[in-house]
Amino acid sequence: MSAAQTRQRILDAARQAFARSGFEATSVRSVASAAGVDQALVHRYFGTKRELFLATLELPVDPARVLAPVLAAPRQHLAEAFLRTLLELWDSDAEPVILAAVRTLTSTPDGPSLVKGFVLDLALSHLRPVVDDPVGSAPTRLALVASQTAGLLVARKVLGIEPLASMPVEQVVALVAPTLQRYMTEPLP
Amino acid sequence: MSAAQTRQRILDAARQAFARSGFEATSVRSVASAAGVDQALVHRYFGTKRELFLATLELPVDPARVLAPVLAAPRQHLAEAFLRTLLELWDSDAEPVILAAVRTLTSTPDGPSLVKGFVLDLALSHLRPVVDDPVGSAPTRLALVASQTAGLLVARKVLGIEPLASMPVEQVVALVAPTLQRYMTEPLP
Repeated sequence: MSAAQTRQRILDAARQAFARSGFEATSVRSVASAAGVDQALVHRYFGTKRELFLATLELPVDPARVLAPVLAAPRQHLAEAFLRTLLELWDSDAEPVILAAVRTLTSTPDGPSLVKGFVLDLALSHLRPVVDDPVGSAPTRLALVASQTAGLLVARKVLGIEPLASMPVEQVVALVAPTLQRYMTEPLP
Repeated sequence: MSAAQTRQRILDAARQAFARSGFEATSVRSVASAAGVDQALVHRYFGTKRELFLATLELPVDPARVLAPVLAAPRQHLAEAFLRTLLELWDSDAEPVILAAVRTLTSTPDGPSLVKGFVLDLALSHLRPVVDDPVGSAPTRLALVASQTAGLLVARKVLGIEPLASMPVEQVVALVAPTLQRYMTEPLP
């Protein structure tokens, strides 16, 4: 079996495992075993479990790296920093790859589960400690943030609904950041 | 050609025309011509242009009928009424059909254009006169409403992000209606 074939077998096994069990409950060991290879080989080809998951999603960026500066923003500007970062990423060279990932993920049976794992475990998880006030409110806050963010991606980039689709980043931030700031840090009913 | 075959030809021609030219610019006459049938036959099989478009989307409900009571709500409760109606529809017997439509529409090349036409021309268009204050603000307001609503459907029904996915309707309304009310009627930057 060629290296490319082995790599593909690992990716296929990983995609199935992440979709079936979610990010947290999936181990690199179980992926290696399902692919019939040694665990060390999985690490050599793909790095950490997080990197393996990103590889199955075929995404061009690591959310941890993208979100690091956001987490350094003052708490009252958290939503603004978060949203500006996302919008600039969607408008960047990464756009076609992101849109291709959205299309692939929504048209395969495993797609929704993989997207959910990505959104909750890889992207928004970095925000969790920052938005858990009062304690225990983070899951609701992050689900609401996910809903507005996913919808903005769909409206601006997938459906192309005007005037949102052609609006400058700063105007979208002015319109939508207050929503995200409320979801992240303000008192909720 | 059997009646079922004729019906299917009309639907195929309509789907292509709506996707290519949008809802407004597509005429029943052009659909009939593309399908090689008489215009009267299209009306006999499908009713109005609006009903023909709904048929191409394979949706179980007519947004005009669903949204009529919403438009009767007091202006300060518009978002609440709108959101409650949507959430109850998504939780109703129509749920599997709505989800199947979402999946079909996101996995076909014509899908995004058809979804955009549905959202803007058939569903949200009913709200346009109510939310155009100041005059000219309706397109921005409706695009924002579309973004939060689409994202809520994705988070609650497609991805199943908890706690949003299992949350009672009234709690979702309490959390998200303020966002939609701001988008619909409050001053925007």
